[in-house]
Amino acid sequence: MAEKIIQPRAISGFPEWLPEEEREFQRLLGIIKNGFEMFGFTPIETAAAELLGILESKGEINKQIYGLYRPNVPIEEKETDLALHFDLTVPLARYVSMNFGKLCFPFRRYQIQKVWRGERPQKGRFREFYQCDIDIVGNETLDPLNDAEIPAIIYGIFQRMQIGDFIIKVSNRKVLQGFLECKGIKRDQIGDILRIIDRIPKTGVESVKKELVEDLKMDTKIAEELLGLARISGKGSDVIGRIKNMNIDHALFSEGLEELSLLALNLGALEVPEEACEFDLSITRGLDYYTGTVYETFLTNYPDLGSVCSGGRYDNLASHFTNKRLPGVGISIGLTRLFSYLLEAGVIQPKSRTNSQVLICVLDRKHLEDYFSMATELRKNGIPTEVFLEPKKLKAQIKYADKKGIPLVLIAGEDEFARKEWQIKDMKTGNQVVARFTDIILKTKEMLPA
Amino acid sequence: MAEKIIQPRAISGFPEWLPEEEREFQRLLGIIKNGFEMFGFTPIETAAAELLGILESKGEINKQIYGLYRPNVPIEEKETDLALHFDLTVPLARYVSMNFGKLCFPFRRYQIQKVWRGERPQKGRFREFYQCDIDIVGNETLDPLNDAEIPAIIYGIFQRMQIGDFIIKVSNRKVLQGFLECKGIKRDQIGDILRIIDRIPKTGVESVKKELVEDLKMDTKIAEELLGLARISGKGSDVIGRIKNMNIDHALFSEGLEELSLLALNLGALEVPEEACEFDLSITRGLDYYTGTVYETFLTNYPDLGSVCSGGRYDNLASHFTNKRLPGVGISIGLTRLFSYLLEAGVIQPKSRTNSQVLICVLDRKHLEDYFSMATELRKNGIPTEVFLEPKKLKAQIKYADKKGIPLVLIAGEDEFARKEWQIKDMKTGNQVVARFTDIILKTKEMLPA
Repeated sequence: MAEKIIQPRAISGFPEWLPEEEREFQRLLGIIKNGFEMFGFTPIETAAAELLGILESKGEINKQIYGLYRPNVPIEEKETDLALHFDLTVPLARYVSMNFGKLCFPFRRYQIQKVWRGERPQKGRFREFYQCDIDIVGNETLDPLNDAEIPAIIYGIFQRMQIGDFIIKVSNRKVLQGFLECKGIKRDQIGDILRIIDRIPKTGVESVKKELVEDLKMDTKIAEELLGLARISGKGSDVIGRIKNMNIDHALFSEGLEELSLLALNLGALEVPEEACEFDLSITRGLDYYTGTVYETFLTNYPDLGSVCSGGRYDNLASHFTNKRLPGVGISIGLTRLFSYLLEAGVIQPKSRTNSQVLICVLDRKHLEDYFSMATELRKNGIPTEVFLEPKKLKAQIKYADKKGIPLVLIAGEDEFARKEWQIKDMKTGNQVVARFTDIILKTKEMLPA
Repeated sequence: MAEKIIQPRAISGFPEWLPEEEREFQRLLGIIKNGFEMFGFTPIETAAAELLGILESKGEINKQIYGLYRPNVPIEEKETDLALHFDLTVPLARYVSMNFGKLCFPFRRYQIQKVWRGERPQKGRFREFYQCDIDIVGNETLDPLNDAEIPAIIYGIFQRMQIGDFIIKVSNRKVLQGFLECKGIKRDQIGDILRIIDRIPKTGVESVKKELVEDLKMDTKIAEELLGLARISGKGSDVIGRIKNMNIDHALFSEGLEELSLLALNLGALEVPEEACEFDLSITRGLDYYTGTVYETFLTNYPDLGSVCSGGRYDNLASHFTNKRLPGVGISIGLTRLFSYLLEAGVIQPKSRTNSQVLICVLDRKHLEDYFSMATELRKNGIPTEVFLEPKKLKAQIKYADKKGIPLVLIAGEDEFARKEWQIKDMKTGNQVVARFTDIILKTKEMLPA
C-alpha cells in the first residue's frame, strides 16, 4: 500500500467507550431521560456552537472556551465568530430569550448534550463531556413548590441507576444569607462568606473559621454562630425545628426556612425516604447565581467523587439576553465524569458487546430464505436479531455469539428443516432445546434474559 | 438593570427546534435507533474532535473543516491540534483501527451524532447536522450477503417514519466497471466515467453522453452501450435477467451481477416489497470509495430532496490508519436535512409541546400531599405527569394543559376528596369523567391516546 499510515491515538480529555461500555452509558442515559420525562420535562437541543460574544457573557470561564476557525481557507476567511458551548445554561438562557413568545411557561425542559472546555486534562477532568440538565423556568415568577419536587427527580434516577447508596443534600441559601444580614454583614461580603462556607467538607470547620475571621475580618462570635448554623444537618423535620428554635426574626431567613419546610413536608408524598435526603446548611453551591434552594448529591461509598448531581434555585436565568425576569430551578448530572469513575471503580460492569438477543446460524446457504424469514419474524416481535453471514463453520458462529454476548443462538440445518424444527441454544447455561417452527417466537421470548 | 443586554440570534446553518418540533425529531431518531438495533447494530460514539491531521487524511473536504483554538489565552497557547469531525466515517476508521484488538468482527456499529462543516450556509445545507450511520466492518473479508440485508434496514425505518412513499434504489458498481474494463477502458478513467454516469438523473442522458464522448473522448458506440446499460432499471429479477442477456464474460461484471442477484433473491424473506426496491444501474454514488453494491433512497413525493439514505460497499475502511484490510458496507441517513425539509413541507406536523400525559391541577394547597401522591402513583405506572405548581386559578391551569398539549387533566378539590373521587378531563374531547380514587390509574391508562 503506497499510502502513509497515520498512527491513530486517543485525544486526552475526550473520552470514548468500547461498545460494551457504551451500552452501559446508554443504559444510564436512558434512565436519566426517563426520569426527567416522568416529571414533565421535554427535550430541547441547542447548537453546539454559540456566538463567542454570547459565551463570554459569563466571564469567569473564558479561558476554557474553544473557538472555531477554518484551518484550510485563505487567511481572511479563517476566523469565525463561533465557539463551542461550555455548559447548557448559557445556551438555555439564549434559547429561552430568543424563543420567548413561542414557549409555554413555566418552561420545563431537559437537555442532554456534550459540552466542551479547553482545560488541562487531568484525572476526572474532561474536555468533552455530557451534561444532563433540567430546568423549570418561570415567566417573571416561579412558585417555590417547584423546588420541592426536585429531590424526587434525583431520587428516582439514582435509585434506578443501581450504582449504590446515595444521599441528596439540600439547603437554602436564604437561611445563611438572612442570618448574615441580620447580623449586619454587608451584602457584598455575603457571597464571599457563602463561598468559604461551601468549603467546609473539603477543608474542615477550623480552616473555614480561620478564613472568615482572619481573611474576611469577621467578628469571631458571629463566625462561630454562623458555623454553628452551617453545621446543622439531618432529617428535614429536625433541621427545621433546630433553625426555628434560633428565633431569628428576619424576612429572608424566614423565607428560606419556609421553602425548606415546603420541601421537607412533601418528600413523603413524593416517596423520597427521609434518610435519602439530608438537610445540610453547609451546602451553598458557591456561586452567587443561586439564590434559594440548593442541591448536591453524593454516592455514599465514593465521597471523593464529590457531588454527582447539583443545582438550585436562581432569580434570573437570562439577565444578559433579555429584560424579562426568568426565575428558575434546575439540576445537572455530569454523566461522563460519573460514568468514567464508576467504570474504573468496577461499579459499572460492561456485560455484552451488542444489543442483539438472537444469533441465527447459517448452516446451509440453500436455506438462506428460511434464515432471513426467521430473523424477520423475530425482529417483527421486537427481538434484535443477527444472521451470521460469513462463510464459517457452526463452531465459529457459536464462538461469535459467545464473544459478543448474544444470549440465544438459533440453529437449523437439513435435518431440522425436514422436521420443521429449530434448536435454541442458551449461551449462558449451554442448554439446547428443540422448538417447533411455530413455537419459536414464544420459546425465544421465554428463554431471553429479563 | 445595569448589565448590557446582548440580543441573542440564531446562527445560520446551526438549526435548532422548538420543543414541539424537537419531540418529532426525537421520534424519528427513536425509529432510526430501533431500526438499527433490530438488525444487531450496537451504538458507539466518538469524540466530536479529532486530530486535525487525521481529518485532513480525506483531502477533498479540508476547506470545510472547523478547527479548535482558544480565544482567551496567551497567544502561545491559543492553537490546538484539534478539529471537529465532518462525518462519522473518518472517526469510525480511526476508532476501529485504534481499538482493533478489542472489537468483535464483523463489527456492526451504529453511530448517531452531529457533524460540522464550515460551508457557506444555503437552503438545505447545514453547518451542524445529524448523521445516522451504520456500518458492518469485516476483518480482511466480509461476505456479500451483508449487502443483501441493508435494504430491509432502510425499508423498516422509512416505513415506520410514516413520511410518505419512498423508493430504495440499488446497484452494483462492479457491473458498469466490469463492462468498461471489458471494453478496454483504462482503470484510471473508470472512476471519472462513473462519476459522470451518476449525474444522469440531474443532467439527463444526452448531456452525460456528450460529456463522455467530448470531454473523456470515449468511443461513441461504447458510450451508447454504457448508457444503455446504465439506463436499465426496474424490479430485481427483470434487471438481472436483462443484464444476463448481455452475455458479457468478465469476472468483475459477473461478480457484480452475482451480488445483485443475492440481494434480489432475499428481499422476499426480509419482507421488502419488490416495488420498494428498484434496481437502477445509473446509481454509482460518484465516490471511488465505493466498490460494489450502492444504495440511495428517495421520497417519491419529494424528488428534489435527493437521496435521504445512501451508502454502499467499500473495500477498505481505514487504509490511512492501519495495514489491516477492513472491507465494509454501510449507509447514512442525514436526519437534519430530512427533518428540516419535511417540517417545512408540512409532512411532519408538531403535535404537542411536551411528553407529559397528565396534568394534576392544584385547587387547594391543603391537599398538596394528595396531589403529589397521585403524581407519584401515575409516574410509577410509567405515565409522565406534571403537577401544576403555580398559584393560579383552575381556568389558567386548564389553559396551560391545552397550550402544552397535555391530553388529560386530573382535578380534585374539597368535594372530590371528601368523596374519594377525582375528575378526569379529556382535553381533546372536553369529556369529563368521575373516577373512584382506586380506579384512577386504570381509567387514566384507558383514556390516554394510543
